[in-house]
Amino acid sequence: MDAHSMMMKRLAVVFGLACGITFSLGSRAQQADGPRYMNGTSLIRPTDYREWTFLSSGLGMTYEPPGSSSPASPSFGNVFVNPSSSRSFMQTGRWPDGTVFILEIRKSNSEASINKAGRFQTDLVSIEAEVKDSRFPDGWAFFLFGAAPSMRSAAEPLSGDRVTSCVECHTKNTAVERTFVQFYPTLLDVARQKGTLKPGF
Amino acid sequence: MDAHSMMMKRLAVVFGLACGITFSLGSRAQQADGPRYMNGTSLIRPTDYREWTFLSSGLGMTYEPPGSSSPASPSFGNVFVNPSSSRSFMQTGRWPDGTVFILEIRKSNSEASINKAGRFQTDLVSIEAEVKDSRFPDGWAFFLFGAAPSMRSAAEPLSGDRVTSCVECHTKNTAVERTFVQFYPTLLDVARQKGTLKPGF
Repeated sequence: MDAHSMMMKRLAVVFGLACGITFSLGSRAQQADGPRYMNGTSLIRPTDYREWTFLSSGLGMTYEPPGSSSPASPSFGNVFVNPSSSRSFMQTGRWPDGTVFILEIRKSNSEASINKAGRFQTDLVSIEAEVKDSRFPDGWAFFLFGAAPSMRSAAEPLSGDRVTSCVECHTKNTAVERTFVQFYPTLLDVARQKGTLKPGF
Repeated sequence: MDAHSMMMKRLAVVFGLACGITFSLGSRAQQADGPRYMNGTSLIRPTDYREWTFLSSGLGMTYEPPGSSSPASPSFGNVFVNPSSSRSFMQTGRWPDGTVFILEIRKSNSEASINKAGRFQTDLVSIEAEVKDSRFPDGWAFFLFGAAPSMRSAAEPLSGDRVTSCVECHTKNTAVERTFVQFYPTLLDVARQKGTLKPGF
């Protein structure tokens, strides 16, 4: 398993990666802040996602048992969603077509400046996206833009062998649709009120 | 030292608390998303700050030496700023009058759902604010809204003995004006480019 795959496995738990495999052309999502594509299904990497709605962050999250791969310097994962979809979720507890999640992975540091313990965020590592779009057969697709500072400006949806385990995990373990709302405290309350949590949550 | 003071000491490092002590009335900040006051200087607690610009988060940050007060269950600190001031900083590397920072403190958890290590965010603990407003003698004021779920809807600026050590620390240790830009990676790059970092950063 290469370094990138390790990181994916470690951090993908923040929203994980389930993956559309084949595509059909249909109506496009209409939000001004929704997904923008190149050549039909290549997602153009959003450059303004730091102005989007922040959902939560985690440090060193993993679904590996502790100790098997505990990093000396764990990474932060920050999750952002396009603002119009966030507002829609707060009203309905569901994600509208055209929702874009961004998982931003950053290095962490501890002793620096006046900080003596705990960890804070530093350099960008990579960006990944998860998009709800009815043009994809299962309604969702997942995109990797590679490692900073040489990220791709657009990415094809993941497909084939790269996504098999993701699909199973995201179908089984997510609290709302294909998203890990159990890790986003402000959304969890809304989903509970709206009755959109899956059974068991 | 009570629980609240301990928490303050532990988490205030994210942006720390320097404090205006006396006030004079002058022109008000004009941003639509800027500070709103009651009775002149009591800051009305913003209820929409989760739609503001996210700056960064830290876990268990402290300026105490490690081991002296390491919590078994460390808290996350999320920092948000009003969007118009964020856009202004990205252009100039400085904070305009009327800037509002929110520090949101949340509990953390580890083993839950499919997560087996690392930590993610859970319940809200408290909210604090730092405001740049030229009506305050040193240009900045700091506000505590108490503990969730019984937070105050407005708060007077900290003053007197509650803030003496904060003032010294914030004058000495902050990278840009009274703010810990060294812990906000996207802003740190901008301040470096614009030449607004204090000497030593």
